[in-house]
Amino acid sequence: MLINCDLGESYGSWTMGLDAQVMPHIDQANIACGFHAGDPLVMRATLALAAEHGVSIGAHPAYPDLPGFGRRSMALSAGEIIASIHYQVAALEGMALVAGLQLSYVKPHGALYNDMMADAAVRAAILEAVASYHRPLALMLQATPAREQHLAEAGAMAVELLFEAFADRCYDDDGSLLSRRKAGAVHSRERMLEQVQQLRADGCVTTVSGRKLPLQADSLCVHGDNPEGVQAIRDIRALVDGS
Amino acid sequence: MLINCDLGESYGSWTMGLDAQVMPHIDQANIACGFHAGDPLVMRATLALAAEHGVSIGAHPAYPDLPGFGRRSMALSAGEIIASIHYQVAALEGMALVAGLQLSYVKPHGALYNDMMADAAVRAAILEAVASYHRPLALMLQATPAREQHLAEAGAMAVELLFEAFADRCYDDDGSLLSRRKAGAVHSRERMLEQVQQLRADGCVTTVSGRKLPLQADSLCVHGDNPEGVQAIRDIRALVDGS
Amino acid sequence: MLINCDLGESYGSWTMGLDAQVMPHIDQANIACGFHAGDPLVMRATLALAAEHGVSIGAHPAYPDLPGFGRRSMALSAGEIIASIHYQVAALEGMALVAGLQLSYVKPHGALYNDMMADAAVRAAILEAVASYHRPLALMLQATPAREQHLAEAGAMAVELLFEAFADRCYDDDGSLLSRRKAGAVHSRERMLEQVQQLRADGCVTTVSGRKLPLQADSLCVHGDNPEGVQAIRDIRALVDGS
Amino acid sequence: MLINCDLGESYGSWTMGLDAQVMPHIDQANIACGFHAGDPLVMRATLALAAEHGVSIGAHPAYPDLPGFGRRSMALSAGEIIASIHYQVAALEGMALVAGLQLSYVKPHGALYNDMMADAAVRAAILEAVASYHRPLALMLQATPAREQHLAEAGAMAVELLFEAFADRCYDDDGSLLSRRKAGAVHSRERMLEQVQQLRADGCVTTVSGRKLPLQADSLCVHGDNPEGVQAIRDIRALVDGS
Repeated sequence: MLINCDLGESYGSWTMGLDAQVMPHIDQANIACGFHAGDPLVMRATLALAAEHGVSIGAHPAYPDLPGFGRRSMALSAGEIIASIHYQVAALEGMALVAGLQLSYVKPHGALYNDMMADAAVRAAILEAVASYHRPLALMLQATPAREQHLAEAGAMAVELLFEAFADRCYDDDGSLLSRRKAGAVHSRERMLEQVQQLRADGCVTTVSGRKLPLQADSLCVHGDNPEGVQAIRDIRALVDGS
Repeated sequence: MLINCDLGESYGSWTMGLDAQVMPHIDQANIACGFHAGDPLVMRATLALAAEHGVSIGAHPAYPDLPGFGRRSMALSAGEIIASIHYQVAALEGMALVAGLQLSYVKPHGALYNDMMADAAVRAAILEAVASYHRPLALMLQATPAREQHLAEAGAMAVELLFEAFADRCYDDDGSLLSRRKAGAVHSRERMLEQVQQLRADGCVTTVSGRKLPLQADSLCVHGDNPEGVQAIRDIRALVDGS
Repeated sequence: MLINCDLGESYGSWTMGLDAQVMPHIDQANIACGFHAGDPLVMRATLALAAEHGVSIGAHPAYPDLPGFGRRSMALSAGEIIASIHYQVAALEGMALVAGLQLSYVKPHGALYNDMMADAAVRAAILEAVASYHRPLALMLQATPAREQHLAEAGAMAVELLFEAFADRCYDDDGSLLSRRKAGAVHSRERMLEQVQQLRADGCVTTVSGRKLPLQADSLCVHGDNPEGVQAIRDIRALVDGS
Repeated sequence: MLINCDLGESYGSWTMGLDAQVMPHIDQANIACGFHAGDPLVMRATLALAAEHGVSIGAHPAYPDLPGFGRRSMALSAGEIIASIHYQVAALEGMALVAGLQLSYVKPHGALYNDMMADAAVRAAILEAVASYHRPLALMLQATPAREQHLAEAGAMAVELLFEAFADRCYDDDGSLLSRRKAGAVHSRERMLEQVQQLRADGCVTTVSGRKLPLQADSLCVHGDNPEGVQAIRDIRALVDGS
């Protein structure tokens, strides 16, 4: 089981995330491409850090919304989604090649990610964007009970999928994440490590109601915004490596 | 002698340039990359048009200045220039590959172009951007009496140069373009065609003072913003093809 | 009955709309404030034109979406809507005062307008934005069968409403505009003038199914994007003045 | 002698500056207006903080350059400078009035400030922007040996000037700030407090060469980017209040 993290989310004079502390402990870096965060200098620095630590890289495209950090859903047409993803993925891929790296996958960011999980039309546009790119890339999305449906949709377009689970978030019974507005939405360190262990050993999580929900995940999504997050990543790394 | 034109300069709901009328008559399309003009949908449409007409494509990167259309000089550091060019060139190249096209060259836009011609530090940064890109691209710049110096600078970085001349602009004695604020800065149709013929046959232009100035140009820069410009391109095409 | 038109929709080097030809024939100019169109120079020029022709001015705020021209719905919070409207209205109002003009009203643009008509939460946020502005401004919205409800909502916040109708668009039976994707969505010149006359004389329109729908409108929204639009405005002006 | 600080420099999800810790200790807040930092929500929050602490507010307009944080000089025309300043000042003023505050002055930011001090044409454009605003505002600029010249220029346009000095920066003999690239450019806490005391008591600073340079300053510019900066502001506040 791999560990992925959103990185390269600084912009100009604004810093976000403890990228240099996170990069040594993860396997996959989802790198912002300039539409919600990440200017060319930030992208270059993030790629250099990934190269230094041998981390696999993915493009992290978003809706074009700097002031909203890509977290506000936008009603883009399928054509706008596809062209915007091509643009962002290509920009990062070219800069990666300059840094001697190969881009491996695409993981939509923020509201584009949420819309992909919730709206079949958005998901179809994103799959078409990945499928029509000039070389094969995997698409990372959330592991849910709809796994087989998502595999079928992607298979029809010959797109490889990577499924991710969340280490520190409590799952609802339907396989979605419990809303952050609800009590217990974010796990304690102990519960987080239990959930990671459960995902690895049993391929399932215990939902908010105590139900066991099967979830096959290729990668764990972690967050490195603050020292506590970095420590959690180190803990998860140790647990995953301990196998 | 080839013909090049800046295209793909629309943005969102705003249209600029008669791209569909220009593309059939040119050899090289300098395509905006999103920093001064050209959103992802516009880039995609412009690339499709270039593919349809078998036109060679170049990236047309600019300072990040949408409201100024990239025409206002900005004091970017060398690192900012290099990363910004990598980002823009990569974005266009990836979208070109999606359209089945190979990117051939880079031609800076507007104030970045002017600064490249006037300021050795900016030119060095642009050369480094092209030289450090992950595959070879030519750099297009203005043919001037400094040709040998520019060739030496580019040669030291193993960058191929393409020199362009202007069909409809009157040259000053030093090889620069006569300022548009001066009388006679823009040629009549007749003078324009004479200048093209002179460039092709004699490798020189007649300057504002009547002096003959040698100019070796690989390509002629033309403009397709309005019906008169399109007609001028057709006239130049006919003259060039008539050889 | 007044005539209003969206103006000042150029941006930087991109021109949109025949503002100079439209301004002499209208009563109210809805002026873009920089979030979907209209940079500071464009705003200044549009205000000067309004001053020259004695046209009343309204702010035309939008979602922050230049590449989408404010036509793509965005999931802004109420707080984001309110602060964004205050910012845009204030920017235009200050520039209007510099030009010797008083701002009279606010008319949301594009997707923000559509969301205001369709979504009570967006409408409440917009009403709160206008109500909490530092001096009274009217809010312009679409005249529909929900007029009384809208008056009640606005009255509760002490906001004056201006209702507008569309001259050249066919109405559906529910009082919404027939989708542009449907046949007959946009009227011929004759039908347009009949609809204007019907609105003025009878306070109603004939819907797509032939039903008479009462619509009380203070102002007619017209479009000046092309010569046909300008001619239509002149025709409507003549009809309205002929009373 | 007053104390001023640049505030409201966060943007969207990016935080910059310890505004809540700085605001209680200063007299004048220079508030970003959206062109280099400060979105509408950030502006609203900063104004609320200023209102809470009774701090006088100034607009802090900049070149339109988010990725460069307004620190890169841009070749704007005089008209572009004037319209851009009107837009930014008006946006902040309207939001200030919503918060029950009156805007008092304008202080250009970053490269626009530096260009104002170094380039008479830029300074003339900025003075014209302030002079042509719809109500009187003061302009804050750097106290230098050119004070009389600046007063004459401003007097000719009936613009009031506020002069500021820097507490923690070493002055060169010509009255400019010693470049940050040079040793001793930024004072220790002790030297900083000595300089503040010298400015208050003697109206002069000791330059890098040991020369006494007369400087009449109305306000001291301080920085609150980190805890050390906040402590320095508290120290200066105590020193100034101790008089």
